Amino acid sequence: MIMQFEIDDIIKKALMEDINYIDVTTDYLIPDDMVTTAKYVAKADGVVCGTEVAMRVFQLLDKNFEYEILIKDGEKVSKGDIIAKFTGSAKALLKGERTALNLIQHMSGIATATRACVDAVAGTKASIADTRKTLPGLRALQKYSVTVGGGKNHRYNLSDCAMLKDTHLDAYGSMEKAVEVLRSKMGHTVKIEVEVANLEELQKALDLGVEIIMLDNMDCQQMTKAVEITAGKAKLEASGNVTLENIKEIAQTGVDIISLGALTHSVKAFDISMKIDKN
Amino acid sequence: MIMQFEIDDIIKKALMEDINYIDVTTDYLIPDDMVTTAKYVAKADGVVCGTEVAMRVFQLLDKNFEYEILIKDGEKVSKGDIIAKFTGSAKALLKGERTALNLIQHMSGIATATRACVDAVAGTKASIADTRKTLPGLRALQKYSVTVGGGKNHRYNLSDCAMLKDTHLDAYGSMEKAVEVLRSKMGHTVKIEVEVANLEELQKALDLGVEIIMLDNMDCQQMTKAVEITAGKAKLEASGNVTLENIKEIAQTGVDIISLGALTHSVKAFDISMKIDKN
Amino acid sequence: MIMQFEIDDIIKKALMEDINYIDVTTDYLIPDDMVTTAKYVAKADGVVCGTEVAMRVFQLLDKNFEYEILIKDGEKVSKGDIIAKFTGSAKALLKGERTALNLIQHMSGIATATRACVDAVAGTKASIADTRKTLPGLRALQKYSVTVGGGKNHRYNLSDCAMLKDTHLDAYGSMEKAVEVLRSKMGHTVKIEVEVANLEELQKALDLGVEIIMLDNMDCQQMTKAVEITAGKAKLEASGNVTLENIKEIAQTGVDIISLGALTHSVKAFDISMKIDKN
Amino acid sequence: MIMQFEIDDIIKKALMEDINYIDVTTDYLIPDDMVTTAKYVAKADGVVCGTEVAMRVFQLLDKNFEYEILIKDGEKVSKGDIIAKFTGSAKALLKGERTALNLIQHMSGIATATRACVDAVAGTKASIADTRKTLPGLRALQKYSVTVGGGKNHRYNLSDCAMLKDTHLDAYGSMEKAVEVLRSKMGHTVKIEVEVANLEELQKALDLGVEIIMLDNMDCQQMTKAVEITAGKAKLEASGNVTLENIKEIAQTGVDIISLGALTHSVKAFDISMKIDKN
Amino acid sequence: MIMQFEIDDIIKKALMEDINYIDVTTDYLIPDDMVTTAKYVAKADGVVCGTEVAMRVFQLLDKNFEYEILIKDGEKVSKGDIIAKFTGSAKALLKGERTALNLIQHMSGIATATRACVDAVAGTKASIADTRKTLPGLRALQKYSVTVGGGKNHRYNLSDCAMLKDTHLDAYGSMEKAVEVLRSKMGHTVKIEVEVANLEELQKALDLGVEIIMLDNMDCQQMTKAVEITAGKAKLEASGNVTLENIKEIAQTGVDIISLGALTHSVKAFDISMKIDKN
Amino acid sequence: MIMQFEIDDIIKKALMEDINYIDVTTDYLIPDDMVTTAKYVAKADGVVCGTEVAMRVFQLLDKNFEYEILIKDGEKVSKGDIIAKFTGSAKALLKGERTALNLIQHMSGIATATRACVDAVAGTKASIADTRKTLPGLRALQKYSVTVGGGKNHRYNLSDCAMLKDTHLDAYGSMEKAVEVLRSKMGHTVKIEVEVANLEELQKALDLGVEIIMLDNMDCQQMTKAVEITAGKAKLEASGNVTLENIKEIAQTGVDIISLGALTHSVKAFDISMKIDKN
Repeated sequence: MIMQFEIDDIIKKALMEDINYIDVTTDYLIPDDMVTTAKYVAKADGVVCGTEVAMRVFQLLDKNFEYEILIKDGEKVSKGDIIAKFTGSAKALLKGERTALNLIQHMSGIATATRACVDAVAGTKASIADTRKTLPGLRALQKYSVTVGGGKNHRYNLSDCAMLKDTHLDAYGSMEKAVEVLRSKMGHTVKIEVEVANLEELQKALDLGVEIIMLDNMDCQQMTKAVEITAGKAKLEASGNVTLENIKEIAQTGVDIISLGALTHSVKAFDISMKIDKN
Repeated sequence: MIMQFEIDDIIKKALMEDINYIDVTTDYLIPDDMVTTAKYVAKADGVVCGTEVAMRVFQLLDKNFEYEILIKDGEKVSKGDIIAKFTGSAKALLKGERTALNLIQHMSGIATATRACVDAVAGTKASIADTRKTLPGLRALQKYSVTVGGGKNHRYNLSDCAMLKDTHLDAYGSMEKAVEVLRSKMGHTVKIEVEVANLEELQKALDLGVEIIMLDNMDCQQMTKAVEITAGKAKLEASGNVTLENIKEIAQTGVDIISLGALTHSVKAFDISMKIDKN
Repeated sequence: MIMQFEIDDIIKKALMEDINYIDVTTDYLIPDDMVTTAKYVAKADGVVCGTEVAMRVFQLLDKNFEYEILIKDGEKVSKGDIIAKFTGSAKALLKGERTALNLIQHMSGIATATRACVDAVAGTKASIADTRKTLPGLRALQKYSVTVGGGKNHRYNLSDCAMLKDTHLDAYGSMEKAVEVLRSKMGHTVKIEVEVANLEELQKALDLGVEIIMLDNMDCQQMTKAVEITAGKAKLEASGNVTLENIKEIAQTGVDIISLGALTHSVKAFDISMKIDKN
Repeated sequence: MIMQFEIDDIIKKALMEDINYIDVTTDYLIPDDMVTTAKYVAKADGVVCGTEVAMRVFQLLDKNFEYEILIKDGEKVSKGDIIAKFTGSAKALLKGERTALNLIQHMSGIATATRACVDAVAGTKASIADTRKTLPGLRALQKYSVTVGGGKNHRYNLSDCAMLKDTHLDAYGSMEKAVEVLRSKMGHTVKIEVEVANLEELQKALDLGVEIIMLDNMDCQQMTKAVEITAGKAKLEASGNVTLENIKEIAQTGVDIISLGALTHSVKAFDISMKIDKN
Repeated sequence: MIMQFEIDDIIKKALMEDINYIDVTTDYLIPDDMVTTAKYVAKADGVVCGTEVAMRVFQLLDKNFEYEILIKDGEKVSKGDIIAKFTGSAKALLKGERTALNLIQHMSGIATATRACVDAVAGTKASIADTRKTLPGLRALQKYSVTVGGGKNHRYNLSDCAMLKDTHLDAYGSMEKAVEVLRSKMGHTVKIEVEVANLEELQKALDLGVEIIMLDNMDCQQMTKAVEITAGKAKLEASGNVTLENIKEIAQTGVDIISLGALTHSVKAFDISMKIDKN
Repeated sequence: MIMQFEIDDIIKKALMEDINYIDVTTDYLIPDDMVTTAKYVAKADGVVCGTEVAMRVFQLLDKNFEYEILIKDGEKVSKGDIIAKFTGSAKALLKGERTALNLIQHMSGIATATRACVDAVAGTKASIADTRKTLPGLRALQKYSVTVGGGKNHRYNLSDCAMLKDTHLDAYGSMEKAVEVLRSKMGHTVKIEVEVANLEELQKALDLGVEIIMLDNMDCQQMTKAVEITAGKAKLEASGNVTLENIKEIAQTGVDIISLGALTHSVKAFDISMKIDKN
């Protein structure tokens, strides 16, 4: 859903990094007219994401490149599954191989980790959300990968939603004052989220009618209380020290959203390999 | 050692991603003339990398920003250590906070993981190297972070060094032919690395006098044999399925280089927090 | 509040358009070391916006350029008022004159028009908002200028807020279904706005609990009814055929927001001239 | 006549401003394979300009987009006329709608205003010209739109033509000296235009043989005199305080060119709407 | 006179080409705090051009870089002369050395060759002009270097001046028609130049009153005739097969301008070396 | 072998330089639907390079452009030979003519000069290499042109290969120390080249086992000695004061590589003209 030309910019930058001038091995060895078929094979179980992006790498290197995607973005794969089959100039396949894999492995890594969290909280009302803890230049691809894994996007950037943290509050003396100032200046499409550290602050935020409240590093007992107190008057977001181990318990407190920075700041590449058919 | 303007381009792109238009919270709440001091605190043990890059984020937002770095790139930190202290406009600190942390946490994550590998092979002749399995747009920062962690850089891109894999060899019928063609076309500053899957291929590569031989997914027994056979006539690089658990054993086979894609494709962010001093 | 480097990019592009190679008149006539003082004088009554941006044009052409701003962004000026005084190389002042004026005149034009609307609805609860009807490449400067004139920003882009128009609704058969789908996919920070053409649709939107409802081209009588029916359960936005003549009457219906595309798509430049002091 | 890739750059920048990440409404609601037809309808009388540019917006979002232009750039339209019909993915049409309209409405606004001036001076020898008072980043599109409306382009930038204003003259003590210096340094393809405030200065400029003389804010009586004195020995350009009301009278003085900054600095968008056919 | 940021863009691109990631030699060997002084020494006789540009390379690598220019752009140097002295970080000097020399040597080469032509025609009325035969991306620097060598700039680009060649004329059936069409469409600041192959065409062009006539590959006898016939009614430009050997004879025919593509398309680098002072 | 999008960037930049806004001659005269055929004709003997690049210029201006290349990159041409035939819109051919020729003439100039050197050393073991003395922004095209002419590429940039010059050595006190430090820090794919001024330094470098030794400005007698001493233990590169006159003699000393900066810093454009068929 990200625009093609935006993806192209990322790919071109990556190809320039990986090739720069020429591929001395491929350009000096492989004939221009050699055509090859290849496939992507999953080397683990997970969720695929970014196959179109990977295929686009080869398209930018070979106008006649053709491909068929067997497993679409968001679908689960098992080790050994064939994700896509494609045919193009051998030069293009060899020169683009690394750049394409770097993209699909990173994106699939995010989708796979997100899906694990989403599955873990299945049956609760909690949704899984990303954060702004993304890698420079890759936010669009990373946030897209989270949605492919079944997660939802937290605010895309600092213009989208106001979030009051203690540092902001210190500057204003009071949460009341800060919320009032924000409401007088912000556009009407922007929500306010307030970060609270305890139940007193939660009550204050509820009294001010803010749309979202982040429960910062609370334990599950506190969060359960918070859910009771809130009673649906605001969305509650659990944040901090969330792991695949404790995520179900957190979800069972009744919070609406659980956000995890690790989905995008500590990505484990999902292993996919490109197999070139023997000629 | 990367040029300032190149780093600036990455930072500006990241700031545009994270702010886009304005920071509705900070820009509407915080006075222009409010000045704040803050510090970076390590929240785990590891190796710091990227403090200058993080400080540059704030400089781009505030010309009067000043900082002092207490723990330099490459130095070890313990949980709780103060990495840097800095002073600038509160607006700049709050608006740049996330972008700066995203950078330093990623870079320190790489340096920390690299250092663990380097330490693990201490006492052997093996050096730790990265690969081309980097994240799009971040290769320079990632490869730099590897060196900060004590690792070495494998080829920076496909122009730097020839590497013959089986796919290339298939196209030429024989390793002999491929090496001959490469030598007739490549510049004299470029080395040839050949990937071998067994000891016969190793012997062939040695006979051809190639500079570097990659032992692809060999077990330690095979690698020990390979080291004996090679007897210093080429550099041997171990690659594939290397982990912190088996890396020492691999190093003890006597190989010259151990390369790990995970250093850059599966980075775990190193936790650092920005503490703003109460005014 | 827009980041300096983003403004710089716009200015550099504008300078390249206006100069391209050299200024044949100035570069061939004016000595390098000639220093001049000049001032900006308002040639009409209005609201100033963009003086810092204009001054930045000269700074990019002359490192030693100095200035003093007498009337700040958002302040009212009368014809003849001096807005800023500045001193720099005569070459820089003459080469940058047009580019700087093009920027400040456009921005001040927006601020002035916005202020007229804001003043017209004073005493009512209505706020004035812009739209996405901006000029290509200038959205940040235009939206900023609206806030300087006392207006508020509607959504900055299509990622910020969902807005259901009839075309979207046609695709889904029903508003209910569309709102349900959006809520299942959107992040929790995003509001939903629904455009309604009559009071039945308004009621339906209210029943769905959407945050904002746009009253599309309704007359004042209808809008008064809409306000009664809504009774504060959603924000109401009046849109379509708003002019300075009818805006007060619209505001008096009790709507929350009045949005005008003309604030940014049909800007009348505010006349400011640069007077160079005789040497 | 502007190169495609230059237009593409403007469109991509505008799409990034308007979409940034995704269109939360359209991307979450509309199926990928839904195809729609639509049309552009004029909502006022005027001159169309920029339809190809608008269509290009959709092409960049949908490779299979097809269109037919019924009223070409420069042709007059009446309210209700269909300007173009087109078919493409519903997603592309909805996501690109605003960006495309912003472009065609601005360009048509310029062409319409220019045409009104050109028509007003019909029968005289005066041609209508634009100025360098353009909006940052949009000069090429704006100047093109002026020609589509029947106007002519004044110099494109400061490299194209020398223009001596009083500030330049002050620096040189005398018009004679300045013209002499310019002639000794400029290339032979560059004309000199001199701005004069009265008939004495006009005579001086004529004596120096400059190609173009700008009559700055003269009244019609003075301009009539200026035309007599000049007797075709230079082109005379009327500039300053020109409106649709007084333009015919100015033209009747016999001046060769009438230039108006308002054609590009104070554009009124020409209203065009996109009607999507019901499926 | 070219804007600093435009030069910076060229330098940054060049530094990225020459360094890309790091300078393995310098970055691994030279201490960060080592400061060095160096100088530029001419290794031939000629005209210096581009010293500021070269110094800027080092400034971009070292904020504390300082320099003194002893021989300014346009001044003649003899072999052994010191052009500039400078001090900066040894790392910056070594890393920027090649990029800086590539620029100053190219620019000085152009200035030197231009000056030779200008000197050769001294005493005649002919001026020396460049053409559009420039190297991609370097037109501004090349055209500036021509003026530094005493030459003049022909049109900067295809928007600046109309030039009718036989191909254009073929399309219109007649020079008369083509000139008429151009005059009806072009802005009033644009001159028309017509290329003529013989004296009949010259007469036709004169009758049409075009401002400039290019005598295409005429011999000196023909050009002498052309000058007589023209009698100052148009500027005459000699073009084609001009060399340093025949340029004086061409100038003596009385033509106004002699243009040479070789000034920019076949540049001989002017030899300058950077001498680093022994520490 | 350079990636298409990288070439496109160079072409677009060049077209913007050469056209900027519009081509006033062609755009105002030539009908949109006029189609023309043309050909490239060699006007001298040499080696063609860059025809695909030149054809790409026209493709970017005309989607329907078609061409046939008769003489491929690297093939020799004689004066009068037809290099390529092509058909496209007359507008595109005329607007792109100069930009396309500027590229192919520069690239063919490099290939032609390189081929002359390669032919001159035929029968010896010496290969011809370029240097980093390239023109800003054109390194990829220039280095590619060298290979088309039969030469080889020296290091592409400062990351590819270490080269120790006297300045580096001064900083370290000794060549031994410098080589040791480099080996401890560099990646295993990077070679070391050392520049030596005499036979003692040569011996020292050989003792250190560096891969490449540059013989700096040695005479042929010295180089012959150097070859004897080296006895194949390192590659020897002759550099400095190489001309077409003395290159064979240098090659006959037995050096491995002869590098010439002039191949790229002092290019003589190879004359090719575009002939448009009469309609």
